[in-house]
Amino acid sequence: MSEHSTFEEIGQWLEEAESFALLSHVRPDGDAIGSQIALGFALEAMGKKVRLINEDGLPDNLAFMAGSDRIETPPDTPVAVDVVIALDTATKPRLGDRTLACVGGCKRWINIDHHKSNPSYGDLNHIDDSSPATGQILYNLITELGLPLPAESRDAIYVAVSTDTGSFQYSGTTADTYEMAADLTRRGLDVGGINALTYDNHPMRRVELMRSLLNTLEVEGDGRIAHWELTRDTVERLQLKPEDSEGLIDIIRAIQGVIVALFFEELPDGKIRVSMRSKDRRVDACKVCMQFGGGGHALAAGIRMAGPIGDARRKVLDAVIAELPDS
Amino acid sequence: MSEHSTFEEIGQWLEEAESFALLSHVRPDGDAIGSQIALGFALEAMGKKVRLINEDGLPDNLAFMAGSDRIETPPDTPVAVDVVIALDTATKPRLGDRTLACVGGCKRWINIDHHKSNPSYGDLNHIDDSSPATGQILYNLITELGLPLPAESRDAIYVAVSTDTGSFQYSGTTADTYEMAADLTRRGLDVGGINALTYDNHPMRRVELMRSLLNTLEVEGDGRIAHWELTRDTVERLQLKPEDSEGLIDIIRAIQGVIVALFFEELPDGKIRVSMRSKDRRVDACKVCMQFGGGGHALAAGIRMAGPIGDARRKVLDAVIAELPDS
Repeated sequence: MSEHSTFEEIGQWLEEAESFALLSHVRPDGDAIGSQIALGFALEAMGKKVRLINEDGLPDNLAFMAGSDRIETPPDTPVAVDVVIALDTATKPRLGDRTLACVGGCKRWINIDHHKSNPSYGDLNHIDDSSPATGQILYNLITELGLPLPAESRDAIYVAVSTDTGSFQYSGTTADTYEMAADLTRRGLDVGGINALTYDNHPMRRVELMRSLLNTLEVEGDGRIAHWELTRDTVERLQLKPEDSEGLIDIIRAIQGVIVALFFEELPDGKIRVSMRSKDRRVDACKVCMQFGGGGHALAAGIRMAGPIGDARRKVLDAVIAELPDS
Repeated sequence: MSEHSTFEEIGQWLEEAESFALLSHVRPDGDAIGSQIALGFALEAMGKKVRLINEDGLPDNLAFMAGSDRIETPPDTPVAVDVVIALDTATKPRLGDRTLACVGGCKRWINIDHHKSNPSYGDLNHIDDSSPATGQILYNLITELGLPLPAESRDAIYVAVSTDTGSFQYSGTTADTYEMAADLTRRGLDVGGINALTYDNHPMRRVELMRSLLNTLEVEGDGRIAHWELTRDTVERLQLKPEDSEGLIDIIRAIQGVIVALFFEELPDGKIRVSMRSKDRRVDACKVCMQFGGGGHALAAGIRMAGPIGDARRKVLDAVIAELPDS
């Protein structure tokens, strides 16, 4: 196992092997699916055999991506390939049990990711946390090695990086990120078209979910805590899918004066999922969540705890209030 | 009057004159205010005297911009400057009556804009509709002429272009736009910080407005028309400001299957303002709005018509339904 492999070392494996399985994490987002498509189509253009496998398959909101029909859920029979490539996946278990089972017979693993916490579980590992998205690492790999960059790969890299940077807004966005977007545009990317499909293309039920959440919105702690909730009742009435709520917490995180935003959601098993965002390093979301068996980062953390939702809401809110700085 | 002046011709005026009044359009947005700050601080760094005047002053949502405290409403007394520079303003009347009155004594006008329809009302005119924002023209002007680019100008250019491109998403965004963002980042722009202030910093009343609008949302025409309304009652209850509703129509324009999105708003004088967005060139929003004395572009148009709001809503919706293509 190598702690850090160069693009050249990875390139040699890509050159020599004939068949590949490209994987990404459960509940995949734009960077996960985008990375699979980007590298997958580059390898196919090199004449390789490629399978794109994800535990949860392709989410509806990414079905607009060219090449996304190639994303498959793990087959029951073993997938025999020369090399497995894990993309954008911080730990091996995050690939999912059935995915791990189907590629269990493969001996050579490449691990490419931008999560700092990635423990380098591959045989070759390229972990670059200076990159705001795995898609940007793959762009560097493809262009530096001179691999083919077909239209599917070009567009997938853009979607991967755009979605993981909140449309080039988050602090991880660098000059190189914008340079990359410039280059992809020069290579024929339809900027207006792809962004319309990525961001302006929600199912009606997502807008209904937004309305429902806003109608439960409450603010407390002198306007420094905003929270809303999603009950099973609403999930079933609106026939919601997991990806429908993605990013909605940003609406209340963005309120002036709010330090902590919380999203309480009833799960099918009766447990409550809590998503917590802090805008102020003095309130450590991870520390609060750990009190309830959860975890995460200082500014974004979560809990899965016992219900009912009203009790969970009260307990967690009290814990957040106790952490608020003197105003 | 010159139909198209080069940066060199404009640069000569900037070099020779001593004092400037920089103007932008009524109801200013990020590109209007950003352009004033960008060029204003560059000129000040050259040792010039500069005033930044806007008919409606600085909107609250742009008060985070460094240098924005320099934006003033038109004074009652004449402003005596060597050169007036109109920025991002498609027609002279869009500068506002009081603004035009206060600079009425000035003989030399420069007009810099990216609106194709601009009739070149200055003595020097630089109209470049290939640029997605006036801020990007000013970036080119400043860098090509080698003018100073202080931090206020750097950040203002970014905000101007980011807000006018929907965060680098709209079709007008070019490779040059991304190159510019890369360069501004290399010059020290705090990408995460400025975007948090631009996009994640809404007053609570904007979120309450979002809830109120969603609660009036209706969909008709087989899911191809989405519309909502804002009554005086809500405007007064939430103490809304004009900028609070900016961009919210995008929420319903983004619904899958929707071709036309409409926003009906009661104005203080009892009239109804209608904003119409089309996602399909077969439905010409401008053509529909012209039936009611309004106008605009094929994909974005508006009307100001007699109330009451229920009647206006019905009449306009019927006109839209008549334009829907056979499904």
